[in-house]
Order: sequence, then C-alpha cells, then structure tokens
Amino acid sequence: MSAATPDPRTEVPGRIMASEMAEQPAVLRRILEEGAPGIRRVAQDIAARKPRFVLLTARGTSDNAALYAKYLLEIRLGLPCGLTSMSTTTAYGARPDLTDVLVVTVSQSGGSPDLVASTRAAREAGAITLAVTNNPGSPLAGVSEYHVDIMAGPEKALPATKTYTASLRALYLFVEGLRGGDGAPAKVLPDLAEQLLARQDELRALAARYRFAERMVITSRGYGYPTAKEAALKLMETSYIPALSYSGADLLHGPLAMVDNVSPVIAVVTDGRGGEALQPVLDRLRGRGADLFVIGPRSQVEQASAGFVLPTEGVAEEVQPVLEIIPLQLLAHEITIARGQDPDAPRALAKVTETH
Amino acid sequence: MSAATPDPRTEVPGRIMASEMAEQPAVLRRILEEGAPGIRRVAQDIAARKPRFVLLTARGTSDNAALYAKYLLEIRLGLPCGLTSMSTTTAYGARPDLTDVLVVTVSQSGGSPDLVASTRAAREAGAITLAVTNNPGSPLAGVSEYHVDIMAGPEKALPATKTYTASLRALYLFVEGLRGGDGAPAKVLPDLAEQLLARQDELRALAARYRFAERMVITSRGYGYPTAKEAALKLMETSYIPALSYSGADLLHGPLAMVDNVSPVIAVVTDGRGGEALQPVLDRLRGRGADLFVIGPRSQVEQASAGFVLPTEGVAEEVQPVLEIIPLQLLAHEITIARGQDPDAPRALAKVTETH
Repeated sequence: MSAATPDPRTEVPGRIMASEMAEQPAVLRRILEEGAPGIRRVAQDIAARKPRFVLLTARGTSDNAALYAKYLLEIRLGLPCGLTSMSTTTAYGARPDLTDVLVVTVSQSGGSPDLVASTRAAREAGAITLAVTNNPGSPLAGVSEYHVDIMAGPEKALPATKTYTASLRALYLFVEGLRGGDGAPAKVLPDLAEQLLARQDELRALAARYRFAERMVITSRGYGYPTAKEAALKLMETSYIPALSYSGADLLHGPLAMVDNVSPVIAVVTDGRGGEALQPVLDRLRGRGADLFVIGPRSQVEQASAGFVLPTEGVAEEVQPVLEIIPLQLLAHEITIARGQDPDAPRALAKVTETH
Repeated sequence: MSAATPDPRTEVPGRIMASEMAEQPAVLRRILEEGAPGIRRVAQDIAARKPRFVLLTARGTSDNAALYAKYLLEIRLGLPCGLTSMSTTTAYGARPDLTDVLVVTVSQSGGSPDLVASTRAAREAGAITLAVTNNPGSPLAGVSEYHVDIMAGPEKALPATKTYTASLRALYLFVEGLRGGDGAPAKVLPDLAEQLLARQDELRALAARYRFAERMVITSRGYGYPTAKEAALKLMETSYIPALSYSGADLLHGPLAMVDNVSPVIAVVTDGRGGEALQPVLDRLRGRGADLFVIGPRSQVEQASAGFVLPTEGVAEEVQPVLEIIPLQLLAHEITIARGQDPDAPRALAKVTETH
C-alpha cells in the first residue's frame, strides 16, 4: 500500500494558480500561431452576414473579457454593442427580435446552464451566435452556430488567469478578423508576458504594502477598464479584500467620497487615449492625497509616488490589456499568501457555476 | 447688522437629503399626473420610427436608472439594449452607424460635458436621441431630438434621491408609452412611498446594526438589480462604507468568497420572477451562515433572520424598484448619522461632474 498522497492544493499555497499564470506566454503563442487561422475563418463568415449590433453574454472573469470585446467592437468596428442582462431571457422569458444581431457568449467552461439557455434562445430569435470557450465539446459550443476555442488547456485553479488572457487574445483576433485584419500587433505579447512574469519579486514587495488593506479601489478608463474590473475580481476571489473597480469618470460621480488615506487606489493607465482620458482623474486623486499606485508606461509611473512600469513602448493600445492584467494577477496571488491564505483554495468557488 | 447666519448644511446632519427624500411621493404624483401625457406623446413619436436597438447613456445614479430602463425595454418590449461605454466616443472618437438606434441619455442635471458630447455624436451618427433630465433648459436637452422632464424640482443634496425615483418613473412611463400602455400600474406608488417614508424608525434601528460594518454586500436579480447598485452607491456616497453590489448570479461566480460573517448581505427580493430567480442565491447565502437582511415581500422576510417588509401585494413587479430603493435611501441616511457623519456633506462630490 502506498503512503497517503499529500494534497497538492495545500502543499505550497497558490502553486496551482502560479503554474497556470506561468503558462500564459505559451498559451498566447498557441492561440496566435495555431488558433488564428480558424478564428479568422469564423470572423470572415460572420462579417459576410453583416451584423448590425452585437450582444455579449458572460459572467465573472469572462464578463470582463466580454467588456474588452465591447470596446474593440465599438472603437475598431463602429458596431453598437450591449452586455446582456441574462435574467431578462432566463427569468422573464424575453424573446427580442435578434435579426442582424451577433450574440457572443464567452465562458471558459462552456457549461453554465443559464449561458446555454440564453444562447439557445438567442439563436431561436434569429441571432448569429458565437461561443468563445476553452472547451469545444461543451454544451455552449454545441448550441452555438459558431465556436472559437481559446486553447488555454485545462484550468484547475479556481481563480481564472490563463483563460482570461486567452479569451482577450481570441476576442481580439476575432474582432480584427471581422475588419479583415491579421492581428499582427498581438505578436509581441508572448515575449512581453514572459518579461512580466519574471518580475514577480516587484509584486511581492508591493504585496507587503497592501497586506493589511481593508479595501482597495482600482480605476482605469477605456481599454484598461476591463483590466480594473478583472483585477478587483481576482483580489476578492483570492484575498477577500473588498476591491471596488470604477471607470475613472464614474469614480468622480460618487464613490470618490470613499477614497482617502485608508483606501489605496491602483490606477491602470493604458498607454494611449484611455490613459489620456484618465489624466484628470489621476490629478484629482493626487490632489486628495490618495495613496495612488500606477500600473502603466514609464512616463506615467514616474509622475506617481509608486508604480509598476509596463513595457508598452511600440505596443498598440488595444492589445495592452493582456500586459496590464498579468502583474495584477501576480499581485492578487502575493497579497493572498502574505495574508496567510491559499490562492488555490478560495472559500466558496466552484469551477462551473450552476446559475439558472 | 444681522447676526451670522448658521450654515443650514451643518445645522441638522442630513436635513437636506431628508427633506428631498420626503418629497418623493409628491414628485411621483406630479410626474404621473402632469408629466404623463407629454411623455406618452414623445413615446408615440419615437415608436412610430420603429427603433431596432436602444443604447442607454448615463453615469452614477442615473446609470442605475438607465439599467432599470434596460430591463423594461428588454422584457416589456423585446428590444435589444446596451449601456454605452462613453469613452469609446469621447476618448477614442468611435462613430458607429446608429440608424434605427434609439439613444437615451439620462442625467439629472443635463450638464455633464461628456454626456452632451456623446449625445451630439450619436445624433450625428443617425440615432434617434432622447434626453431624460431634471432640467429642460440644460445643454443635454438642447442637443437631443426629444426630451423628457422628470419634474423633480431642484435637488440640493449631493446624494441624489428624488431624482432617482423620478427618473425610474419617467422611464417607466416612456417604455409603457412605446408599447401603447398608459402606465396605470404605477398609480399606487405615491401612496405606498408615503407609507415607506413613515417607517423611518425601523431603518434607524437597522442602522445601529450596520454602524460598525467595514463593508457590505447588496444583491438582487432582475428588476431589483438596479436597486442593489443604487443602494450600494448611496451607502458609499454618504457613509463611505465600501458596499459591493452584485446580481445574484454574478455573486456565485467569485465574490461569494468574500461573504462571511464579517460581510453583512442585504438582499433586495422583488415580488415576482426576479425574486424567484434569486431564491437559490438566498439559500446558498443562508447555507454559508451569512448575515442576511431581506428587503421584500412579507413571505420572503418571514423566511429570513431579519428584514424589512415591502407592501408589494398587488403591485406589478416592474414598478416595485421605486418601493425598494426608498428604505435603502433612508438606511444610508441613518447609517451615516449613526457613524457621526453628515449625509449632506460628502467629502468629494460635486453636483455636476465635469468629466470629458
């Protein structure tokens, strides 16, 4: 008889999450090299059907990837978009006319019953349906007319990391494919992601700064806003610190009252128009004496009291969200360990959430 | 020479906010009696132009009113909807083709430059534009093709209360007008709002329970979800307690890890399908031993450890959000006073937020 096998989840705290974060450069390479041609074909087929409006459906981490796709679709293609309020279909039985509407459902597992039901209802209502999942054999892929595989490989950690960056990349290639582009600006990302992962020590030092934080505020604008939302979700899932994310503009409309020297602020500053639009918010936060940490290009970090420099030089603004989230994933992981908890064992999460 | 006039803002903490909350029954009556015919005419004109999609644009409290309108439009009219990501227009210069698209911009002041700019851009891009404001002379009303006046009278308190319920009511009458209805189910609301305002003592007792809370979670589903978001915003603006709002389904996808005996949960249970869809979430929260407070119909409150009964009997589900938010406004007010702060003097808010 063999000796009792130690539970790998508790052996080294955060080992599973760490190994999946470390896979991200390889996953990005795989989707850019092996996945891109198939994604381009799906995009060409859908473009030929000339959708007029796009509805994006997702929950949790995938909802943040869907929000990124919304920015891409509106800015790069000029397509009006909405994020689905799923209960209108699943609880209230709404059956809108979805002729000319592209419905994109994003779900790493492809298994949530409510996503399957709302996608089936959308297809019956005349929508062009596309599932973006990590599981080509999933029920969601089955009910959708088109499917894009994010090719991230099995994800075992409960906090999603590599499936988030893989979803961003797949959605980017899809949207670029809709407009006839080849997604070349994304090719620099795998190497840059590797550089970021090698800087874990910087994030460990930063984790010490936030170890005793009772709450955090994360803000951004434009392409970086989905990053702020995903970073907040990651922090809450792993460390249980209440992390509130706001677009910079919304922050000025109310929650700013909550920001003071006891609410540290992380600002995600995209190098481009999003960062420029955030500038007045950063000035206002500095004017209030907020504890402000900037993740962004060197020029922005140099103006802040503290920060983490992203290698954004020569990187197209629309692909930067992949670079932005990686240090924030590492930070969530390090803060959780610093607080004596295990990022691999959140208290309440199930990998496939069975909402109906 | 006259004696120095005492500053009315500091004389009695929360006096201005309290007086504006108390005006809500009168404001609701005014819009139902004097405003309804004009709103119906605007709705008939717009219905004749057969919009295919609706985009809703707003920030802060008005954004929560816009989300309520999104549920109404999807459920009652089957119109696909989206909430605008404003920076795509104002920062990135996106110019989507908005033929057949109705763009509804909600803003109590009608003065935010970014809302004016994005509405002007939408109109130039072919959209049917409607402004819903508390100021018919505002720049926003000026750039929009149609205007609905929410008739709430001047709002002086920084936390918006009567303009929120007035916006909900105006948007409801507008959506019902689009489908040829008269909005009769809303007629019971002014009297019921009066009953709720008379129960301030119950909320004062509840405020004692939350006085030392370091964070709060507010959840709902369906029509009550905008209520959860607005209640969280109100709590943060006045008391600075970090209040996190989630749709029940999203709560199960991650943030649930943060809910335990130190994060009290308020559940807004709409009497109808929204409340039914929330049931599994309530069961799960109870199973985790969460401190759960229910605002909803008597049958739901009786199952909870604590709650506030809403008079929902015979009230159509789609008009209940006006009833749901009033006790939560009162609660935010009372918690703030219990914490020794002044709801009329939030630390950072300006009434017209100048985001660009």
